[in-house]
Amino acid sequence: MKSAACLAFWGIDDASTLTALGLHALQHRGQEAAGIVSFDGRQFYTEKRMGLVGDHYTDPALLAKLPGTMAIGHTRYSTTGEVALRNVQPLFAELEAGGIAIAHNGNFTNGLTLRRQIIATGAICQSTSDTEVVLHLIARSRHSSTTDRFIDAIRQMEGGYAMVALTRTKLIAARDPVGIRPLVMGELDGKPIFCSETCALDIIGAKYIRDVENGEVIICEVQPDGSITIEERKTARNVPERPCLFEYVYFARPDSVVSGRSVYKARKNAGINLAKEAPVEADVVVPVPDGGTPAAIGFAQQSGIPFELGIIRNHYVGRTFIEPTQQIRAFGVRLKHSANRAEIAGKRWC
Amino acid sequence: MKSAACLAFWGIDDASTLTALGLHALQHRGQEAAGIVSFDGRQFYTEKRMGLVGDHYTDPALLAKLPGTMAIGHTRYSTTGEVALRNVQPLFAELEAGGIAIAHNGNFTNGLTLRRQIIATGAICQSTSDTEVVLHLIARSRHSSTTDRFIDAIRQMEGGYAMVALTRTKLIAARDPVGIRPLVMGELDGKPIFCSETCALDIIGAKYIRDVENGEVIICEVQPDGSITIEERKTARNVPERPCLFEYVYFARPDSVVSGRSVYKARKNAGINLAKEAPVEADVVVPVPDGGTPAAIGFAQQSGIPFELGIIRNHYVGRTFIEPTQQIRAFGVRLKHSANRAEIAGKRWC
Amino acid sequence: MKSAACLAFWGIDDASTLTALGLHALQHRGQEAAGIVSFDGRQFYTEKRMGLVGDHYTDPALLAKLPGTMAIGHTRYSTTGEVALRNVQPLFAELEAGGIAIAHNGNFTNGLTLRRQIIATGAICQSTSDTEVVLHLIARSRHSSTTDRFIDAIRQMEGGYAMVALTRTKLIAARDPVGIRPLVMGELDGKPIFCSETCALDIIGAKYIRDVENGEVIICEVQPDGSITIEERKTARNVPERPCLFEYVYFARPDSVVSGRSVYKARKNAGINLAKEAPVEADVVVPVPDGGTPAAIGFAQQSGIPFELGIIRNHYVGRTFIEPTQQIRAFGVRLKHSANRAEIAGKRWC
Amino acid sequence: MKSAACLAFWGIDDASTLTALGLHALQHRGQEAAGIVSFDGRQFYTEKRMGLVGDHYTDPALLAKLPGTMAIGHTRYSTTGEVALRNVQPLFAELEAGGIAIAHNGNFTNGLTLRRQIIATGAICQSTSDTEVVLHLIARSRHSSTTDRFIDAIRQMEGGYAMVALTRTKLIAARDPVGIRPLVMGELDGKPIFCSETCALDIIGAKYIRDVENGEVIICEVQPDGSITIEERKTARNVPERPCLFEYVYFARPDSVVSGRSVYKARKNAGINLAKEAPVEADVVVPVPDGGTPAAIGFAQQSGIPFELGIIRNHYVGRTFIEPTQQIRAFGVRLKHSANRAEIAGKRWC
Repeated sequence: MKSAACLAFWGIDDASTLTALGLHALQHRGQEAAGIVSFDGRQFYTEKRMGLVGDHYTDPALLAKLPGTMAIGHTRYSTTGEVALRNVQPLFAELEAGGIAIAHNGNFTNGLTLRRQIIATGAICQSTSDTEVVLHLIARSRHSSTTDRFIDAIRQMEGGYAMVALTRTKLIAARDPVGIRPLVMGELDGKPIFCSETCALDIIGAKYIRDVENGEVIICEVQPDGSITIEERKTARNVPERPCLFEYVYFARPDSVVSGRSVYKARKNAGINLAKEAPVEADVVVPVPDGGTPAAIGFAQQSGIPFELGIIRNHYVGRTFIEPTQQIRAFGVRLKHSANRAEIAGKRWC
Repeated sequence: MKSAACLAFWGIDDASTLTALGLHALQHRGQEAAGIVSFDGRQFYTEKRMGLVGDHYTDPALLAKLPGTMAIGHTRYSTTGEVALRNVQPLFAELEAGGIAIAHNGNFTNGLTLRRQIIATGAICQSTSDTEVVLHLIARSRHSSTTDRFIDAIRQMEGGYAMVALTRTKLIAARDPVGIRPLVMGELDGKPIFCSETCALDIIGAKYIRDVENGEVIICEVQPDGSITIEERKTARNVPERPCLFEYVYFARPDSVVSGRSVYKARKNAGINLAKEAPVEADVVVPVPDGGTPAAIGFAQQSGIPFELGIIRNHYVGRTFIEPTQQIRAFGVRLKHSANRAEIAGKRWC
Repeated sequence: MKSAACLAFWGIDDASTLTALGLHALQHRGQEAAGIVSFDGRQFYTEKRMGLVGDHYTDPALLAKLPGTMAIGHTRYSTTGEVALRNVQPLFAELEAGGIAIAHNGNFTNGLTLRRQIIATGAICQSTSDTEVVLHLIARSRHSSTTDRFIDAIRQMEGGYAMVALTRTKLIAARDPVGIRPLVMGELDGKPIFCSETCALDIIGAKYIRDVENGEVIICEVQPDGSITIEERKTARNVPERPCLFEYVYFARPDSVVSGRSVYKARKNAGINLAKEAPVEADVVVPVPDGGTPAAIGFAQQSGIPFELGIIRNHYVGRTFIEPTQQIRAFGVRLKHSANRAEIAGKRWC
Repeated sequence: MKSAACLAFWGIDDASTLTALGLHALQHRGQEAAGIVSFDGRQFYTEKRMGLVGDHYTDPALLAKLPGTMAIGHTRYSTTGEVALRNVQPLFAELEAGGIAIAHNGNFTNGLTLRRQIIATGAICQSTSDTEVVLHLIARSRHSSTTDRFIDAIRQMEGGYAMVALTRTKLIAARDPVGIRPLVMGELDGKPIFCSETCALDIIGAKYIRDVENGEVIICEVQPDGSITIEERKTARNVPERPCLFEYVYFARPDSVVSGRSVYKARKNAGINLAKEAPVEADVVVPVPDGGTPAAIGFAQQSGIPFELGIIRNHYVGRTFIEPTQQIRAFGVRLKHSANRAEIAGKRWC
């Protein structure tokens, strides 16, 4: 199980600065590395850095290396495998029809199998990311248009994904048939934006339009007269959406709305239901901040037991759960939370 | 008004690593810079860095440059004046009797006057920090023992301070006559520790002993047989303690106990009292995280209005209020908080 | 016209440290970037850095990321095109039979044509380096052994090249049919070494064995019993060698022996011949250091005019000619040479 | 024995950029660290960096932190003692009459004695540099003008020094009574410049005026009408100049003129004299580059034995002799020189 953020801006000046701000709002989805690809009408630019968005993409000199009005970005979260810049997305390839960059949130269940097949027929893989397979399938597709090649490629992929792609004239967004990972469409200054969660729209004052549907591909294309056309395609017959439970309990930010449901309300309802199903005798309800706070509020409201901050979080470390190694996790936990002794000493709590 | 952290470990292996952990727990008191001075029985070592403790003092190579069983540290917070490494504490001086390092939390009201007097009589000031005046007064004192020189110096200082000092054989802690800034004494493995707030004891599993009293100087000295003597001196007649109000409402961490009072409870009581004194009709009580959360909990409990997280904080930026420039503050605020629309849309809130 | 260095060590502990030393000796061939790939019996490791070898590969932490007894390296020099880490060699690819890394000194005249053909048939190019074409041709070859695939690939390449390749069991060195770029074979502790110039052998105390011949491929392979077999193949019928003139007048170090001729002697002979063909009346012969010094010595010896250092070089800047931009070149020149006024004032010189 | 460079510009826009260029030309005198202090009419700015001038002071962002039309600089070379930024010059102090910065090339033989006396009377030393003593003596002088205080201070110093100082209105240059270290005065755009060697004048196109004499202090002061007055003072009765021999054989650049003598000619004459005093039978004269080259040219011209470059220097390392540790020296030597085998094999050489 993993998460990550992808994000795309289109037709807006300083697209890479806006992308950096959006990635900052999505930082909770992946803290290991971040990358941005931009296009300025002539050429694609790629910058990738290990570490937090705010550590690097606040530098005007770095953003100046990413000119143009179109950009896509990614923050990386890794469970296994090699930590290396070449695995940091967006991944880029020069196709016959021009360059394409893709950023992917999710896991392909058949990525390794396809990778082996592709290598066996003479392809070169330069990353160990399963996302690279998509690029190869696009390159090898017998379709002629980039859109058809892209759809041809993702139809061969199995598993969960939300994905954005950038070509010289198109911005493409896609979600897997059951909608495991979130992806929303917004609008800024009349131009389309795609991002993993609504909080990335809020940070830059963009308007939420709708979720990309499960099994849907949305293709935005600039026309010779400068107007933008938006085409909606389906890659799968209508099946019910089955979003990943962990989005609600862990990955997403509480102020995001995922698949039409408030993450905060979903967490609070979990606490309310827990109080109904498993009532306890206690003096105080103490959340493990920050993930557990909404559920604790719900539990306290339902049970009538006072809600108190019995555990304090040090705000100068990142999230523990998604650090790559057990050792760092263990160290992080020690540094991150401390008991608010005055509040919990002598109390029965739950 | 400003804050900062000071911290001292003594007689404990890897004193600088423990100091770094303690400074990390005190990071909220000053984020601009951090410094550590250690002593290994032969020589003093100084390292200072701009930025957060966790950005630098997690590097084993840096900690290896700070060997020894004695160390003091400081995190810097600046309101005005020059941001430069030479102003970062602890400050160090070679006296005739050997080196001394000092770290100071607070402001001297007569610092500038004394500085001018000292310079007029041939002294050289190499920082613009008012703390340097203390070093000069120690150097110029006609007393012979370092303890007497230190007390002689701080008796000439006016204003609020909590201070720790390290010499070749002594660890000294002092608080101003009315106790404006906090300073507590703890114990780890039978050895004395001093730090600005109790949360720095908690992070390393040290035991809280007592507050350094207002107007008190505590001198710990290692004896030839290795034992440690602790001497308690008073620099002022007993006057009532008058701790800075801002410790309770802003500077201190909620899990700290300042002058015997829980910061969390003090903040929560402020909310309870506000609800009594100024009741309002509202659907929801929303805290501005994280400083305002305890007060909002108090208000909600007293008023019966539900407490909800209507504003979400991005955990990947530092505290806004204490950044040095208005421009950075303004930018920081935009990046830091976002509305939890699902929770506050259509609500009356306060 | 461009140059660069490639270098390969095999079967020797700390192969990457030796490679770094060799690249340092070859630094004059390319100062823009340097890369090393190592193999430790299980896995390949790649590190690339912009800038000088000595700026990065002297760091034990970096060398520790390149474990193993086999390594190849490269220093990059660019005339045109994108300066980016993804273009820095050695380039690496996972083939069906395992990984392969290649480092290339030279230019392919049909690189762009082949690149277009390969992309048109579904390949993805991730660099803009013409060297990547060789990897694709190896991947697509219908031969089964890596050696045959490598030879199949380079037979399709036109232009000048010296190249080394590293697989899990083989170290391969190749030179183009007319031997435009130099490549020599040496021996250290009984193990084969290949490098662009003999000065890289000298720095580590290795023994010169012979030049790789024009149109030759040498394949070193470790056998199950640990012994090393060396196979010599020809990719072209015997044609006369035509080494690049610029190796003698500019690229190579004066202490190197290129195609059996001392570079120093070649330069000095140029000066001797110039003095014979175009004698002048002058008081002093002044070299433009350091490239012009051997020729000036030759001219002075032949003409009998005294040789003096009338121009002094500042040793804290790199070579001007091969910096990538005109602006940097212009700036570099100003910083690099200064007149030795006492020696040239009032003199007739040439 | 040690060397270092000091340099001062005055009344010229972008004084710090010119100072950086001059320090670059003087880099051979000290490679460990470099510092610049500038003054912009209101405030002094200090920047110090470990490493080469060209590694740091080519960064426009760093130079922008050093505004103003007056600046002094220093490159540091250390034989013993602590390598730390606080010891890097120029040193700066706030005196009653305003700030003063000083940069010093040389060694005080009574520095330690004076340092102890000063500390015994209540002064604080914040560096371990003997140059700091001068600042204390200036601060403590009973004279009223800065010029008199400066002269009062350096009269108490023993040993060799060339020194420059910068105050809010004055630029002061001084040389010790016997002129052990060099210091020259130049002119750029009608404004005075002081630097250790003439090569720093040449790099920026400044004109050489004269040497600062042994035992002389030159005080340049800006007047209220903007004009510059130049005052010449003597700190010692006229004694013969005794410049350090090592300036001619090692420290200075060959294109510099030290105390009226060309360094290049001095070195060449040493070779000529050696050939006369100790003639040998040899096939070839080979210099150890670059320090030994002028002497080898002299020896070859005198003896008639051909001069050849039998040893080649790798230009990508700094000078060996002045690296601070034996280990680095040993490593450096191995990396720096290599035999030009083709030229020396089978030869008798000296």
